[in-house]
Amino acid sequence: MSSARESPDKATANNPLKHPNSRIAVLTSHFTATMSSEKDAALAAAAAPPPADSPTIFDKIINKEIPAKVVYEDDKVLAFRDISPQAPTHILLIPKIKDGLTGLSQAEERHCEILGQLLYAAKLVAKQEGLEDGFRVVINDGPDGSQSVYHLHLHLLGGRQMNWPPG
Amino acid sequence: MSSARESPDKATANNPLKHPNSRIAVLTSHFTATMSSEKDAALAAAAAPPPADSPTIFDKIINKEIPAKVVYEDDKVLAFRDISPQAPTHILLIPKIKDGLTGLSQAEERHCEILGQLLYAAKLVAKQEGLEDGFRVVINDGPDGSQSVYHLHLHLLGGRQMNWPPG
Repeated sequence: MSSARESPDKATANNPLKHPNSRIAVLTSHFTATMSSEKDAALAAAAAPPPADSPTIFDKIINKEIPAKVVYEDDKVLAFRDISPQAPTHILLIPKIKDGLTGLSQAEERHCEILGQLLYAAKLVAKQEGLEDGFRVVINDGPDGSQSVYHLHLHLLGGRQMNWPPG
Repeated sequence: MSSARESPDKATANNPLKHPNSRIAVLTSHFTATMSSEKDAALAAAAAPPPADSPTIFDKIINKEIPAKVVYEDDKVLAFRDISPQAPTHILLIPKIKDGLTGLSQAEERHCEILGQLLYAAKLVAKQEGLEDGFRVVINDGPDGSQSVYHLHLHLLGGRQMNWPPG
């Protein structure tokens, strides 16, 4: 993960000509080792942001078009293991209906209910995973936050001592 | 912050005799440079966890007994600047009424509403702070999550590139 600590080459990251397939790379980053980190994927995503309502890889997971290790599901929330885990337990929680929530920055007052349900589901999954010594929940928004997929998602990490600062 | 990367001396951290004033240290950690990191504070907190409903330093902030740089307030949520910022913008958001929420792991279904309001408030504060390039929201729970104060709080960080992994 040393590359994640390097200064980003913004001139390259922001030049679509040098990332002709950047969106494809982002979409596959949760499933292959093509990209070295969430941060790289976020920089690529910033170079070619999709329209707010365009499908992402998460829609394919919700629709079971591609497999995922689902650990929790209810009528509103789906939780599955991150393909590039940063801790012994690393799970993503997403709303099954995006409803404009490409990221937390796009939340409107009507989204309060699903936001609460997502955090409560994170608690339920943490308990289910036996994280009684603690855990961390992370939400990335936009390029500075290292958001890679523009469908709101919570990262639940545990099973090791989490450090400070948080990235 | 290099000490935050060191292996914790659990034998010391878990021995109350070697931390006779550990709770006091935790309570002051957000306001002084006594402790080098949130992680140190978390380890000390783990050595002497308070009863679930005991007051914390956040109650004194809510009651205006001690000063804080408040950036947002509504009837349910209070947001103020972290005294030990880990990014150019680093704000804590807390429920004004703890209602048993010492941490996210203690959430019950009845807490969904305040959990959603906290996340939505984080979005409002991020916008107010001009974090249009993105941000990160972090919730620490328990010793592994480096939780320092046992009153649920969200960290909002922005103004720089956030790295991966998130601590």
